[in-house]
Amino acid sequence: MPEFLELLPPAKALETLLQHLPAYHPAAHVVDTTAALDLVTASEILSPEPLPAFPRSTVDGYAVKAADTYGASEALPAYLKLVGEIPMGSKPTLTLQNGQAALIHTGGMLPEGCDAVVMIENTQTVSPNEVEVFKPVAVGDNTLKMGEDVEPGQQVLPAGKKIGPADIGGLLALGILQVPVVLPPRVGILSSGDEVIPPDQKPAIGQVRDINSATLSALVRKFGGNPVLYGIIPDHFETLLAAAQRAAQECDMVIITAGSSASVRDLTAMAIQELGEPGVLVHGVNIKPGKPTILAVCNHKAIIGLPGNPVSALVIASLFVVPVIRSLLGLPASPPSPVLHARLTINVPSQAGREDWVPVRLLFTPEGLLADPIFFKSNLILTLAKADGMIRIVPEANGIAAGETVDVFQPFG
Amino acid sequence: MPEFLELLPPAKALETLLQHLPAYHPAAHVVDTTAALDLVTASEILSPEPLPAFPRSTVDGYAVKAADTYGASEALPAYLKLVGEIPMGSKPTLTLQNGQAALIHTGGMLPEGCDAVVMIENTQTVSPNEVEVFKPVAVGDNTLKMGEDVEPGQQVLPAGKKIGPADIGGLLALGILQVPVVLPPRVGILSSGDEVIPPDQKPAIGQVRDINSATLSALVRKFGGNPVLYGIIPDHFETLLAAAQRAAQECDMVIITAGSSASVRDLTAMAIQELGEPGVLVHGVNIKPGKPTILAVCNHKAIIGLPGNPVSALVIASLFVVPVIRSLLGLPASPPSPVLHARLTINVPSQAGREDWVPVRLLFTPEGLLADPIFFKSNLILTLAKADGMIRIVPEANGIAAGETVDVFQPFG
Repeated sequence: MPEFLELLPPAKALETLLQHLPAYHPAAHVVDTTAALDLVTASEILSPEPLPAFPRSTVDGYAVKAADTYGASEALPAYLKLVGEIPMGSKPTLTLQNGQAALIHTGGMLPEGCDAVVMIENTQTVSPNEVEVFKPVAVGDNTLKMGEDVEPGQQVLPAGKKIGPADIGGLLALGILQVPVVLPPRVGILSSGDEVIPPDQKPAIGQVRDINSATLSALVRKFGGNPVLYGIIPDHFETLLAAAQRAAQECDMVIITAGSSASVRDLTAMAIQELGEPGVLVHGVNIKPGKPTILAVCNHKAIIGLPGNPVSALVIASLFVVPVIRSLLGLPASPPSPVLHARLTINVPSQAGREDWVPVRLLFTPEGLLADPIFFKSNLILTLAKADGMIRIVPEANGIAAGETVDVFQPFG
Repeated sequence: MPEFLELLPPAKALETLLQHLPAYHPAAHVVDTTAALDLVTASEILSPEPLPAFPRSTVDGYAVKAADTYGASEALPAYLKLVGEIPMGSKPTLTLQNGQAALIHTGGMLPEGCDAVVMIENTQTVSPNEVEVFKPVAVGDNTLKMGEDVEPGQQVLPAGKKIGPADIGGLLALGILQVPVVLPPRVGILSSGDEVIPPDQKPAIGQVRDINSATLSALVRKFGGNPVLYGIIPDHFETLLAAAQRAAQECDMVIITAGSSASVRDLTAMAIQELGEPGVLVHGVNIKPGKPTILAVCNHKAIIGLPGNPVSALVIASLFVVPVIRSLLGLPASPPSPVLHARLTINVPSQAGREDWVPVRLLFTPEGLLADPIFFKSNLILTLAKADGMIRIVPEANGIAAGETVDVFQPFG
């Protein structure tokens, strides 16, 4: 199976892959809310109780009857009788009568008879028993009714929400101590190539250490997946096929990094094609680095063949593997990525019609942030390790000129 | 101790805090390289060996003597004798003589006598024993010398580098299986307030659940710190002071969320002032939310008093706690933040002279990304849970108009 003659643009290639994936019903389990950071809700979470659980003040000030403050001004303050202070940790015992006020703190429960709170800035105590109010309040001002924030049964978090610090707080505020989350999808990782050896061995002449297993594991873990390593597979069709079949059986998706020569890339495509219908969808993407990328769906699972060289493998994984992991988690596959803006230090040529990704170093200068492209002769992974981010040159362009402002992506941290 | 009359702008307040922190020598330990994702290097890492470890081809093609290809063209190809194929996983046994070529794969070791590689695209095999070359190569073309990427003793990673997938790959490529990393700084978290109860309890009237301990723990963990919880402390000076002293003793920094009323905020500042020299540096920041922020350095440790309300506490922690954690990790305190660009849906007024942070929801429309501000009556943490990010209104502005393009920050995920 040769590479397809027509190379797909990256966006079209990803769309093709995602379109062939079935709607996914992720496996869920329940974890403590405080341990749910960065996990994804498996179903919507509804509130078991109202919030606030009692009518409360949203400011420091005086609990009043609003009608007693009507017309109050700096020139003509309203004078109210100070009848006490609302305690913070318990239910107030006093009841406000006409013309009365009680000191109240933010979060304090409104006493009976109170329908508004005057901010402390708009008052002055005249004596221990009297307070002047300079500004009128309307009924409800600076207060929250019971259940005004959240009613019982109201949605607190939707399904498919990545849980952040604020979400954990929102759940705990409602006494929700456990939460159903998506089990991290299992991502099988196979590294192939006769010349590839484990990183703890000393390479003999002609051998290289397997680093794709580790870089792809880290990327998978960073984006919420559970990497499952199948080790280094020799360039032998039946062996590769057997390992890929086992991985496809045991995992939710599979990535295979090919050996580096063209003949071996074909081996990978042939093995993937045997894994099930519909098989290989994209073989070759119009991108640099990463042209010999293989995208397939076999028996409802994404199978992705990555180039063997570590820079290409990591760039392509960030563009094609990450969106699939996100889909498997129930998240949007490709949300917009936050970027930094920087000015390019030198011209970067590119071939029109092809999308190019170029690693850059960020330079902090008095004139602002600069993006300095890193060009390496080899496809050494240390190129990316030295980079602070990457810039994209769209297929429509044949390069970006020095001095232009570019978006700097940070696709793998 | 009342709040200072002059409220500092946030940037100036942070600068004041960081200036008073001593140069930090983080504690380090050694972890497996494959387990080092998102940890920070404690010292620079030098290469123990050259990379590549042998002279190799960077393309698929033919190993040649460059001089044999001089003048070759489509019209007048150079004809070379094909003398074999370089095996991938072992040292080549053949030696190239004048007029000879050998098939070589990307990453293959150059045979004796070879000084360049011709790309396969620029060749054609005429017979099993002969190959045509259409394009000349210069000495060194499409090859890497031994040590050309990395010489032994050369820096692989600097100290203070957050380890990403590519870094793990770079280390393993050189056989570096373990790496010294900074121990996560211990961040003591105290939640104070008579009205505050643990989240697993049912609030009585006037009580609220402690959520700051959990949201701040999550934020600390997200940015590489190790949260240490000291629980809920009542509004009682000696008790608060004793807890703060213990936390300051045991941790690298301390955060204390105050009860919600003004009187209790003073209690926090008084306790912090007792923890050591120089004491409180900033009391009150010109920001919304979060005005009653306290920044202190006591006995060389940052002590930060946060407002009790959960939204303010989380926003202020992202602005002042996170930079200190980063410093303690040996990272730059405040690197530029990647942002999304979106158009604002409605006018957002703000008070000139004050920095405002407003939560927004992102809306994906055919016209592009929109930022829709969320205004809540209360300071409910669910406001932030529903937000996709926050926008900042600089002190110089008195608001942002609908339709303007804004930077959307994602400070706590």
